[in-house]
Amino acid sequence: MTTYEAGNYDVIVIGAGHAGVEAAYAAAKRGASTLMLTMNLDMIAFMPCNPSIGGPAKGIVVREIDALGGLMGKVIDKTYIQMRMLNTGKGPAVRALRAQADKPLYIQEMKRLLENEENLTLRQAMVEELIVENDEIKGVITETNAIYRASSVIITTGTFMRGRVIIGDISYESGPNNQRASVKLAENLEKIGFDLVRFKTGTPPRVNNHTIDYSKTEIQPGDDNPQHFSYETTEAILDQIPCWLTYTNEGTHEIINENLGLSAMYSGMIKGTGPRYCPSIEDKIVRFHDKPRHQIFLEPEGRNTEEVYVQGLSTSLPEYVQHKIIRSIPGLEEAEIMRAGYAIEYDAVVPTQLWPTLEVKKTAGLFTAGQINGTSGYEEAAGQGIMAGINAASRALNKESVILDRSQAYIGVLIDDLVTKGTSEPYRLLTSRAEYRLLLRHDNADLRLTDIGYNLGLISEERYQRFLQKKEWIDQEKDRLKKCQLKPNDKLQAMVEEVGGTRLKDGIKAYDLLKRPEVSYAFIEKVTPSDQELPFEVKEQVEIQVKYEGYISKSNQQVERLKKMENKVIPEGIDYDDIGGIATEAKEKFKKVRPLSVAQASRISGVNPADISILLVYIEQGKVAKAANR
Amino acid sequence: MTTYEAGNYDVIVIGAGHAGVEAAYAAAKRGASTLMLTMNLDMIAFMPCNPSIGGPAKGIVVREIDALGGLMGKVIDKTYIQMRMLNTGKGPAVRALRAQADKPLYIQEMKRLLENEENLTLRQAMVEELIVENDEIKGVITETNAIYRASSVIITTGTFMRGRVIIGDISYESGPNNQRASVKLAENLEKIGFDLVRFKTGTPPRVNNHTIDYSKTEIQPGDDNPQHFSYETTEAILDQIPCWLTYTNEGTHEIINENLGLSAMYSGMIKGTGPRYCPSIEDKIVRFHDKPRHQIFLEPEGRNTEEVYVQGLSTSLPEYVQHKIIRSIPGLEEAEIMRAGYAIEYDAVVPTQLWPTLEVKKTAGLFTAGQINGTSGYEEAAGQGIMAGINAASRALNKESVILDRSQAYIGVLIDDLVTKGTSEPYRLLTSRAEYRLLLRHDNADLRLTDIGYNLGLISEERYQRFLQKKEWIDQEKDRLKKCQLKPNDKLQAMVEEVGGTRLKDGIKAYDLLKRPEVSYAFIEKVTPSDQELPFEVKEQVEIQVKYEGYISKSNQQVERLKKMENKVIPEGIDYDDIGGIATEAKEKFKKVRPLSVAQASRISGVNPADISILLVYIEQGKVAKAANR
Repeated sequence: MTTYEAGNYDVIVIGAGHAGVEAAYAAAKRGASTLMLTMNLDMIAFMPCNPSIGGPAKGIVVREIDALGGLMGKVIDKTYIQMRMLNTGKGPAVRALRAQADKPLYIQEMKRLLENEENLTLRQAMVEELIVENDEIKGVITETNAIYRASSVIITTGTFMRGRVIIGDISYESGPNNQRASVKLAENLEKIGFDLVRFKTGTPPRVNNHTIDYSKTEIQPGDDNPQHFSYETTEAILDQIPCWLTYTNEGTHEIINENLGLSAMYSGMIKGTGPRYCPSIEDKIVRFHDKPRHQIFLEPEGRNTEEVYVQGLSTSLPEYVQHKIIRSIPGLEEAEIMRAGYAIEYDAVVPTQLWPTLEVKKTAGLFTAGQINGTSGYEEAAGQGIMAGINAASRALNKESVILDRSQAYIGVLIDDLVTKGTSEPYRLLTSRAEYRLLLRHDNADLRLTDIGYNLGLISEERYQRFLQKKEWIDQEKDRLKKCQLKPNDKLQAMVEEVGGTRLKDGIKAYDLLKRPEVSYAFIEKVTPSDQELPFEVKEQVEIQVKYEGYISKSNQQVERLKKMENKVIPEGIDYDDIGGIATEAKEKFKKVRPLSVAQASRISGVNPADISILLVYIEQGKVAKAANR
Repeated sequence: MTTYEAGNYDVIVIGAGHAGVEAAYAAAKRGASTLMLTMNLDMIAFMPCNPSIGGPAKGIVVREIDALGGLMGKVIDKTYIQMRMLNTGKGPAVRALRAQADKPLYIQEMKRLLENEENLTLRQAMVEELIVENDEIKGVITETNAIYRASSVIITTGTFMRGRVIIGDISYESGPNNQRASVKLAENLEKIGFDLVRFKTGTPPRVNNHTIDYSKTEIQPGDDNPQHFSYETTEAILDQIPCWLTYTNEGTHEIINENLGLSAMYSGMIKGTGPRYCPSIEDKIVRFHDKPRHQIFLEPEGRNTEEVYVQGLSTSLPEYVQHKIIRSIPGLEEAEIMRAGYAIEYDAVVPTQLWPTLEVKKTAGLFTAGQINGTSGYEEAAGQGIMAGINAASRALNKESVILDRSQAYIGVLIDDLVTKGTSEPYRLLTSRAEYRLLLRHDNADLRLTDIGYNLGLISEERYQRFLQKKEWIDQEKDRLKKCQLKPNDKLQAMVEEVGGTRLKDGIKAYDLLKRPEVSYAFIEKVTPSDQELPFEVKEQVEIQVKYEGYISKSNQQVERLKKMENKVIPEGIDYDDIGGIATEAKEKFKKVRPLSVAQASRISGVNPADISILLVYIEQGKVAKAANR
């Protein structure tokens, strides 16, 4: 094999899916000379599964990525066919945006942005081998024997590593959507000593729009005044396209039950573990067997295609059973499948092998991000991607690494969960995973993270100034409301009664009036308008911050307590065997996870409060000789 | 293996490249229920090589496809980034349109048209096996064990069959652009008894637009008033994008010569035969070693991508040599390669195994079209595709099959060459291959073929009426000019002298004046305007038909003679061994090609006029018992 030196970079990103593109862009924006290698330049940021971005928790991640200066929000805002704010009737903590994407357009726009990025080189190539010397990454070798050297390498292979597609009793080596699988890289990772696991995921059939009878379904339109993911988006896309809702029924369930033995899931064909929160239809029928029906959303895959994604019908049943299932559903009686559903098994990395920077513990400079780390979902991938990109650039450029904590971002929750607890199945973000979810809102992602993005060089000066202006307006308006004493005159009393509130006994500060559940900022505005025309986001923020002040400050207190624990750094050289009294299980876990702080240690599954107390005492007694921080 | 019955169709098309899409569309338009199976629905009509359509001879094929009612012209007219009429300074026989394509948009538009076609079902699937019973096609079996039955099947696998990519000393199994290769179908064809050959083709590197210094190149803009391929196009795309011209130099050639041993072409890695008229750069350097430079065109791959195709630099040299070559070229000194060039070897079918309908002789109902038949080029593929689609539908619907003869269309020349002479290398259409090229013009494709397309149901009534109107206008205007006697008055004499002609001696018919080389239709129009406002195409046609009347009528006489030979049908049951006096080589060739007519027989290479004379006498003596026509 005649290899050749093909170039030196600061950062190399392997893969150009949702993790890879954010990683490459963030690294390049930080000033690192970055090379992104992908098997197929026509499939950059391809969506192999659902044509949508956002949703509960996930939508907040997209906003966080945008607040840090990433791409996903910008690109979906330019290419959506429909935008909806979810849970508008519920509290602000669970609100989130969800967009239907135009798949081909999303690819095109993402590729264009990356091609135009100064420090970034895009190249089509399959990476087969990592160059590792003395437990440090040095570069990669491609299928065509090119050696690219770099001080940081990020692997984002998604479901391509030893990908195997399974439909009924058929299985064949393949990446998603009939792309070539990446086999040699997996073998190489094994050789280097990686712990790999086998996960699986799946996707439903797509049908031709012309063969659907929509009269039997319910329309799901987009919002009239669509909000956006990115803080840079100024223009809305007006001609939105609806989705459609239909349901499975007992006939459907019967077909599935009759053919359960043929499902790759149940026949034993599939060895990998599937995502609990994104189950196949056969899984749903088995696990929720008393449910008479399941929702099926019909989602167009783009503006210029007739392919329609059958959301909710992910399956690895044989093709002919898929046809039967489809045709048992109202509206789909005549539907023609264009692509069959399938399951795909792939190699993932056990994520407890990673530091919270997403750097691999045993291989300095090597990072992994996205589905390879055991997650599912485009947004989870992108969230890891941007952090891996930031930290890979940090290493290459000798700058500080960045770890978001659990109170700062869903991305922090996601990565901490992965590297601290690991995951025994494809991990999906849920609002329930965030203990500070009242702080990690959709509406305040910019307030939480823009400073970080700006300091990293990912946010433009112009945008940052706009952000500071917004913050100032919020503070000014809150101050004004605090000072504004309202008299309980007849007009005000009548207005209060009109919205269903009880009459005021005394004068009241506008600020306190806004705390009443029935009073909105729009109400306050009518009573005491601001001198200046405030943008919607400022008003929204004032309302939420004032209304939920009590809850928010309680959360903040908890965060303070956590911070104390997070600040109790565990010295790098700690010898757990030297600590008497810690349970064996905890000791083993500590050694494997190597937590950076006592807080992280306490989140490891199988570790008890008693173990943590002993650990604390040990550290505080200064028993660790070399207390160098990582 | 548990197969299942997945559906019955009239026609199945395997593959969705430039041949496949025309085949499927034509079959469906004729009224045949048609299934198109492709490995990847996102790659329909993908252009794996140059981002352009048309050019000498090829551009005329696109017009012919459009005249027959096909897709290529319509789609490129909607998606071009630049349009040029070539050879405007030369005679009408060599004029042709050439468009630069927006690759992703071309895919999108083609897919959309197919998805909206009533009789056509698109499905993602890899075909692995043909079902053949008693030498008759019955259907296909896919990788997922679906059986689709049909009375006609068209194979259009392009370069996917046992595809093998080769770059320097590296080679791996792959279709174009890192797609999965189709291996089992090739094995199956071999088993059925097909004669396969190994061909190769190649593609140059793509570079990033931002890394090109265009100041060192020459601009190649599109036409100010772009003409179009399709007779249905009414609107021009106005914001055209230029291409750029640069050249190789002695430095480039030195690099290539130094590394020639590393070229897969010259090291013996490549076993397949490459296209003579689309040679790799190393081929050009070797074959034309005294040429100091070669043209390199820099062609954008689309409106929203920064990838630029380096036309003229097709190569299978190692990647690092490609980098050196690129950077030796003015304007590309800093260029970054995004995709490396590569050669691809693939299995093709020996085309003399086909009837002129593109049906396989030994397997009734099976058709092959496109690169699998040994051609190169999108246009050659599409031209075969539409004919295979028409004839596959003919068979399924019990209608007459359609064979275009050499005087009717370049498509006729192409197919006749393939099935009569075979090809020992990837076949490319050239104007020199057409003996009646004065008849096979770009400007008269509609006059030649619209009637056929209309009778097949591929042309709408509205379009056909427009076509008839155009024909009527042409005839009327020619008649008018024949009757219009011009007096040699001072004004006319002055006009004639102004365009450099000699003074008229007598009065002259406008018709005859137009025959003078220096006189254009625009001139005639000034002297004797028509009563009605005639469209450009009518004026163009009148000018060409009148000016070249002599040549055209001579060609037509030759065609008449050919027709007589074409009408001398060779009976199906002929026993060549029974004919005394024919040379052994001719006998063997006759048995292999099984020509349908004496004309076709005469075009077989290795057959001499003496053999044809004997054959003629034999047939005319009625020595063949069963004179059933095919």
